[in-house]
Amino acid sequence: MPLVRISLIKGKPPTYIRAVADGVHRALHEAYNAPVDDRFQLIEQREAGELIYDPDYLGIHRTDDIIIIHVFAGNWRDAAMKQAFYNRVVELLADDPGMRPQDVQIVISSNERADWSFGNGIASYVAR
Amino acid sequence: MPLVRISLIKGKPPTYIRAVADGVHRALHEAYNAPVDDRFQLIEQREAGELIYDPDYLGIHRTDDIIIIHVFAGNWRDAAMKQAFYNRVVELLADDPGMRPQDVQIVISSNERADWSFGNGIASYVAR
Amino acid sequence: MPLVRISLIKGKPPTYIRAVADGVHRALHEAYNAPVDDRFQLIEQREAGELIYDPDYLGIHRTDDIIIIHVFAGNWRDAAMKQAFYNRVVELLADDPGMRPQDVQIVISSNERADWSFGNGIASYVAR
Repeated sequence: MPLVRISLIKGKPPTYIRAVADGVHRALHEAYNAPVDDRFQLIEQREAGELIYDPDYLGIHRTDDIIIIHVFAGNWRDAAMKQAFYNRVVELLADDPGMRPQDVQIVISSNERADWSFGNGIASYVAR
Repeated sequence: MPLVRISLIKGKPPTYIRAVADGVHRALHEAYNAPVDDRFQLIEQREAGELIYDPDYLGIHRTDDIIIIHVFAGNWRDAAMKQAFYNRVVELLADDPGMRPQDVQIVISSNERADWSFGNGIASYVAR
Repeated sequence: MPLVRISLIKGKPPTYIRAVADGVHRALHEAYNAPVDDRFQLIEQREAGELIYDPDYLGIHRTDDIIIIHVFAGNWRDAAMKQAFYNRVVELLADDPGMRPQDVQIVISSNERADWSFGNGIASYVAR
């Protein structure tokens, strides 16, 4: 993995949501050392009142187009790689589906190699 | 952030849910060092069979009014601050919307300063 | 806890979903040191386009029966126990509801003793 949870407010067409998911995965591959076929994403569409955000925290103006990208990934990346990943996500989503950079929120939660099983009951990154 | 995921069983009116979300955020601000405008919350309403809980674990009697508050926040808080936060959440939710303290479950998952981007592709807590 | 989030594509009957949840909890109890009454699970049913997965990552062939089991649990387990847990989950879900081992994905996110409050505003694993 990473396992990625993408939350946004309902109302976007499937092509828009797919472009977001594709862009996030491409950024993980290009800037965060994720294999191109290591793709596991959960899309969480919420009613307006179910995604609560501050429109101006840290002086960044957000709108209801906000997405919250929550990445669960291995802890073998450093701060520079995280910064490169954030930057690449915003670039790609600005291009398609055309998102404002201010609306792209990203959070990373890290874990260990032994914390992943991709099937067959095997700790995939330990057993290999 | 913190990024907060609040799960509960469907059937509560919007004013009830908003009171829960407001109380959790106020407790984060008052007792967990979160800026007042650092608010990002996801409400997860479930069908009854989609939120499974033990009604008596650790001798605490829970009901279908149970909420599970999952807080993703920076690791620069200690155990005393976590205890103060738990206590304040329960106090505030007892007051409004009037929740039983036994029904308030809280889990914290911590991460690092480099793990947060609040927009514009910047690692907000590193770049500042 | 552990707090367990189980994601799958919509369309399975309630008995199937309950068998999955029961099997995951039994594996946590038998192989991961979770008390039998320490059960808190969130079921996340998704539309097909909301659970995106690679069907062949690491040479394991997955189908739309895929489930993603995301376990949030205390960090006082080692890699050997994680491996035993993965193995037991797959064994139990193969038996009931009859899942393919390839379709069972598991991710673990760990935290500390002070990170859990099971009610009453108490840090349950610290105060005891």
